[in-house]
Amino acid sequence: MPAPDLAPVPKHITGFSNPTVKYLRALRDKKNRKRAGQFLVEGLRLLEDARSVGRIPQMLVMAESNERAATGHAVLARLVDAVSEAGGEIITTTPDILAKITGKENAQSVAGVFDEWDTGLARLERNAAPIWLVAQALRDPGNLGTMLRTGDAVGAGGLILIDDCADPFSAEAVRASMGAIFTVPVAQARWEAFLPWLRSGPGQLVAASLRKAVPYRGAPYAAPCFVLVGNESQGLPEAYEAACDLRVTMPMRGRADSLNAAVAGAVLAYEVLATLGA
Amino acid sequence: MPAPDLAPVPKHITGFSNPTVKYLRALRDKKNRKRAGQFLVEGLRLLEDARSVGRIPQMLVMAESNERAATGHAVLARLVDAVSEAGGEIITTTPDILAKITGKENAQSVAGVFDEWDTGLARLERNAAPIWLVAQALRDPGNLGTMLRTGDAVGAGGLILIDDCADPFSAEAVRASMGAIFTVPVAQARWEAFLPWLRSGPGQLVAASLRKAVPYRGAPYAAPCFVLVGNESQGLPEAYEAACDLRVTMPMRGRADSLNAAVAGAVLAYEVLATLGA
Repeated sequence: MPAPDLAPVPKHITGFSNPTVKYLRALRDKKNRKRAGQFLVEGLRLLEDARSVGRIPQMLVMAESNERAATGHAVLARLVDAVSEAGGEIITTTPDILAKITGKENAQSVAGVFDEWDTGLARLERNAAPIWLVAQALRDPGNLGTMLRTGDAVGAGGLILIDDCADPFSAEAVRASMGAIFTVPVAQARWEAFLPWLRSGPGQLVAASLRKAVPYRGAPYAAPCFVLVGNESQGLPEAYEAACDLRVTMPMRGRADSLNAAVAGAVLAYEVLATLGA
Repeated sequence: MPAPDLAPVPKHITGFSNPTVKYLRALRDKKNRKRAGQFLVEGLRLLEDARSVGRIPQMLVMAESNERAATGHAVLARLVDAVSEAGGEIITTTPDILAKITGKENAQSVAGVFDEWDTGLARLERNAAPIWLVAQALRDPGNLGTMLRTGDAVGAGGLILIDDCADPFSAEAVRASMGAIFTVPVAQARWEAFLPWLRSGPGQLVAASLRKAVPYRGAPYAAPCFVLVGNESQGLPEAYEAACDLRVTMPMRGRADSLNAAVAGAVLAYEVLATLGA
């Protein structure tokens, strides 16, 4: 803890039309996030997840009623210290303004602004893990966050997003990830860039397929195994499936012919985990 | 096709303050759905899923621009016939009013009103299937719908909702179910009613547990097997787990200690399916 005289003096915002409020509010929009290179994370739990792995927000925004609780709330106090020590900005405001920023009536009492990070394929170390998750044209940010969370659970090397997917830095994806956005590497690439990258080293590409395929149970998985699921309504393009090393299918006993994309990825990833004894 | 002179004469609504519009709009709210005993289903795909298993809406609402397409659109035409033959009401309106009813800017071009059905435990036939899904205090309607969809895929006898869960008849749950709301039986009960019902016949209750438990892989599952998952943030109450016949756990290789509830249920259900060779 810094000595009291070194403690940060929070900036206080009371006006809805304050430029910082406008800036933060704009981060709800993907286009603005990309322009700013920043994203907003809501809630103490997620912010603490981030802090615990060394991700410190550039800016911390606290609602007044909870700022008072800061001295009593050890987790929040530690977060404030971490932001302050890292040279970040600390802002207090009203619950109404924080609600306006996050767009939620029952807003979290604290939010943080982080720099987005590089999501290039070059960052990935394919031999770091036996399992990788790959999603193509995954449109639902909740599904994306859920896949990050599953990726954490199975010890995946990362989640690779192919073609036009939801934004991993959207509030909904971050929330559904339950903090995994901070721990599971995420990469974004077009198929035309992904495939050459994959083929430049070891790696088995396995498609969760709705077409002719072998049963997912007992299939010959090999590490590093890249588990590929397709778009929520279209599944994988045929040409993508054809480029895979293995096409597997799960039993479908009902009337429908497909599972939720995040569910399919998880069932398959756990099967790979069991097979590889990873 | 009925002869032209027997074809239904749709009622046409052009006013936002029309009582039918108000009634339909109110169905977005759970309290109103319970009072009316009806729910709204949006989109031709879901309505066709319903029709194909004999569920016909009491009322069909079509946006004008698409009504014209009805004669050319075989699926919609068949639906209109089915509603008409069943004595249901057919209403045409403007795209704006339909958007107001559904609360979505890009509204579907057609919506149907169904009577809710009985969700009592007494309706269930436990020997009808080797696998059943059970969720306790599942709050997210998307997770609920996803579990219905998974239930369809694994051939589950049904989804049993314990304690205070999301409403299976909400628009979000229905949409996430991808039509499984119409094919997978759903029941609602308090734990205090569920447990005696379960114990009144054969049935193995299996908890997806975060606590001391055996590995989910290779656990001694037995039909009819009831796979129980807990609330999104709290998991299952300890007393509920204690009442289970088997507690199983999935590998968690990362920093988090849990999976998304619908994902956990699916991974477990597919393991049960593989084990029982169902």
